[in-house]
Amino acid sequence: MSVPSRRVSVDLGARSYEIAIGEGLLDDPTLLRSWLRGREVCLVSNETLAPRYFPRIQALLPPDARVSHFTMGDGERFKSFETLTALLDTLLAERHSRATTLIAIGGGVVGDLTGFAAAVYQRGVAFIQVPTTLLAQVDSSIGGKTAVNHPRGKNMIGAFHQPEGVLIDTACLKTLPERELQAGLAEVIKYGAMHDADFFAWLEANMGVLLAREGDALGEAIARSCQAKAEVVAADEREGGARALLNLGHTFGHAMETHTGYGPWLHGEAVGAGMVLAADLSARLGLLPWADAARVKALVAAAGLPVMGPEGMAPEAYLDLMALDKKVIDGRLRLVLLSALGTGVVRDDVPLVALRETLERGPALCQSPT
Amino acid sequence: MSVPSRRVSVDLGARSYEIAIGEGLLDDPTLLRSWLRGREVCLVSNETLAPRYFPRIQALLPPDARVSHFTMGDGERFKSFETLTALLDTLLAERHSRATTLIAIGGGVVGDLTGFAAAVYQRGVAFIQVPTTLLAQVDSSIGGKTAVNHPRGKNMIGAFHQPEGVLIDTACLKTLPERELQAGLAEVIKYGAMHDADFFAWLEANMGVLLAREGDALGEAIARSCQAKAEVVAADEREGGARALLNLGHTFGHAMETHTGYGPWLHGEAVGAGMVLAADLSARLGLLPWADAARVKALVAAAGLPVMGPEGMAPEAYLDLMALDKKVIDGRLRLVLLSALGTGVVRDDVPLVALRETLERGPALCQSPT
Repeated sequence: MSVPSRRVSVDLGARSYEIAIGEGLLDDPTLLRSWLRGREVCLVSNETLAPRYFPRIQALLPPDARVSHFTMGDGERFKSFETLTALLDTLLAERHSRATTLIAIGGGVVGDLTGFAAAVYQRGVAFIQVPTTLLAQVDSSIGGKTAVNHPRGKNMIGAFHQPEGVLIDTACLKTLPERELQAGLAEVIKYGAMHDADFFAWLEANMGVLLAREGDALGEAIARSCQAKAEVVAADEREGGARALLNLGHTFGHAMETHTGYGPWLHGEAVGAGMVLAADLSARLGLLPWADAARVKALVAAAGLPVMGPEGMAPEAYLDLMALDKKVIDGRLRLVLLSALGTGVVRDDVPLVALRETLERGPALCQSPT
Repeated sequence: MSVPSRRVSVDLGARSYEIAIGEGLLDDPTLLRSWLRGREVCLVSNETLAPRYFPRIQALLPPDARVSHFTMGDGERFKSFETLTALLDTLLAERHSRATTLIAIGGGVVGDLTGFAAAVYQRGVAFIQVPTTLLAQVDSSIGGKTAVNHPRGKNMIGAFHQPEGVLIDTACLKTLPERELQAGLAEVIKYGAMHDADFFAWLEANMGVLLAREGDALGEAIARSCQAKAEVVAADEREGGARALLNLGHTFGHAMETHTGYGPWLHGEAVGAGMVLAADLSARLGLLPWADAARVKALVAAAGLPVMGPEGMAPEAYLDLMALDKKVIDGRLRLVLLSALGTGVVRDDVPLVALRETLERGPALCQSPT
């Protein structure tokens, strides 16, 4: 039995791979088996998802596979060096060789941590992404960025390591909490804003059906998001240039997440509010019409996402945390802004006074000051 | 001022780099400065070498460089997750950006750990190798293998990450302890045995002057060793094929090091004794004349290295630890053997009975049983 699916290719030479998107893909063993490198497998998930998914994935594996299981805590705070060490200890204790394949089942936390473990276990083994949240399906499972957090900053320790394949079953989204669905839509909106103006307009027209989890609309939104990300990543695997545009809203967002200590704010929520700040700053610098900045804010709001950062977070707190962000090179803060709806641009010459004005603006963000 | 030097290129496309070998290279700022990526630098060494080398390296850096220092403990047991974490913490606390360059000054422990930190800090930053031991100069500083140890095995956690360049000042060897010089010669002998029969014969003729640290002979031995390794690595960066031949003696050697708990046996000493086991097994299987196996044992002995494993280490201890070695794929033990002097060969079909006979042989290793 083979389930019909949309396919997106990530073209990276010898490290190319496919993303398969479809309803019911987790009932079909074909793809998963074709991506295994050997007969050793380690399933990785969190305590919430493991009971639901481990038996289903195990049923897809070849009968002679030697399978280990690793269950981590549920939440961003478990994307840590400690969890990484525990997973590596398990692989060693259960004598996994270089021919093993790790399968990450869950959201971005599980995927990023599992991918990083695969990157460094015996200097690199295979892994497969089975993202179960919208955020992971459209963003973190694609592109090979893996990492753990550090108390001093998010994703500070990591590696580039591409999966063997990404398996997206849209049926997983039926049980996703509302707030996580909305958080995923932040990244979906991002692809429209920084890469694809037509898709942005499509999202303005379809946000209602997406929030209602209408199957075909979700499949379309995921496939177009994956396509956008695959195009950017194929052009720039290691973030020398175009890939930086994927960070629209993220430098602001990471500051919010670090400030609140990872957890109270979902990543997508911080990115949503961060995009509103980026749109305001873009308009303030004369790059983007204020009316388009207002469309960004309106679409973020329509997805049910916050349009302002955490209450009481002072501009100085942003500036301090942003100075440690990975996008700082030789002391210059690089920010992704919009030069039009559908076109991101990296700037490292943003005047501090303009940045501070945007950070102080609060509810008036994205409204023309005149 | 520019110091005359031998140069070896490691040809890896976009990740190519140069090895410079010469007496007095640490008095010449030209090369080191040309390899820096930005103006942020972190010097890494151990407590024994840092007082001697940090001021010398610092004197080579541009006056406007922002320099951090990290000093680790001296010894294989500090090639650990704990030391890695401490180095990464320092980089974060001192706000190093993605444009930083780490400089590893010392032996393989410092180089492997620093390289791994560079591989994972913010998903990869630049690093430079300044190897000060013969072992690091001819082996660990070349080829991009980085790692830390785990209580369950050596180099189990790591990454492939190529340096910007390798700076070898042969003057460093004047103060190297005798035992470490001998340990480095084990890897030098390895290149002759598995890759270059002429070089093996040259070593038989020159072992005396090498042990006397005659400058030009050392420079020649290092350059020919680096050339051999560079050729193998360029053909096979990630150990899919030919690179495995560099592990001659290492699967046995790692078992010895793990058995004794890292420290009592130097890596090179274990490799020396491991090569004697590999030569014996090669002759036992009819791949290599017994007379050539005896030449391997004699050259290892001439370098002052052990020709048998740790006293009291039983064959079962080898077999158990070798089963966890990274060279095991899908349950088959892969061993590097010799099909002639100067020609290594990978075999995954060694009969257990022959392996056990070699492990039980003791002082009679490499003597024809007839």
